Amino acid sequence: MFSRIDHVGVVVADIASSQRWYEDQLGWTPTDSEYLDSVGVHLCYLRSPDGDDERTVTFLQLVQPVGPGPILDFLNQRGEGLHHVCFAADNLHLALGRMGEDSVRPFVGGRNRLACFLEATPNGVLIELTEVAPSRVG
Amino acid sequence: MFSRIDHVGVVVADIASSQRWYEDQLGWTPTDSEYLDSVGVHLCYLRSPDGDDERTVTFLQLVQPVGPGPILDFLNQRGEGLHHVCFAADNLHLALGRMGEDSVRPFVGGRNRLACFLEATPNGVLIELTEVAPSRVG
Repeated sequence: MFSRIDHVGVVVADIASSQRWYEDQLGWTPTDSEYLDSVGVHLCYLRSPDGDDERTVTFLQLVQPVGPGPILDFLNQRGEGLHHVCFAADNLHLALGRMGEDSVRPFVGGRNRLACFLEATPNGVLIELTEVAPSRVG
Repeated sequence: MFSRIDHVGVVVADIASSQRWYEDQLGWTPTDSEYLDSVGVHLCYLRSPDGDDERTVTFLQLVQPVGPGPILDFLNQRGEGLHHVCFAADNLHLALGRMGEDSVRPFVGGRNRLACFLEATPNGVLIELTEVAPSRVG
């Protein structure tokens, strides 16, 4: 149902300086960079030089708050650090139905994909779910 | 140099009850389960039903403390939650040399692989590095 971990989200104070460590030390490359005004964040996705197949790769996602919202709250309360894990499904609505999470309302998230965060946080882990294909809504 | 995210580590109080959520809600399957006595932990790796190629898949790793050590300290101080991200290299010693981390001493970690944790924690993220192939030491 969920074919892979799509990305791991890290809250950072400044994307530009943060992505340098991953570039210099791991050889990872920034790909998409975008602002999600609805959530007040700047996003940047990093991937390995081998990670050229977007349907199979697991990205590292840097998330910088640029306005009020849960990410700014997280940064103020807990500082920079690991924030969430995002699992990918071919069909998000179908997957949510199977999970008994029909009440969750997906939004158009990063890379124009349908996404949602679950209220359940198993073992204190914030879980995002996303649809592999770009959104048919956006 | 680092071809992918090998796994995301989550500290949990009890693996048996924790893995159930991922099985029931995401359809992910426990694979290797092992005790690392040197670190005082019980490990369990979960993967998607599609994740049959160990060289490309990103696992979720559940880590339960079973004795004194940094994982028990983490659980006592911060509770359950995201703990580290592990990146995979074909040759760990070569990769550490390129990073200027020659002083790091890899150990034989989960799944009999060479692994190490970096002292640097960019953006508050604990980074593990591992070698893709099973250890030539162990």
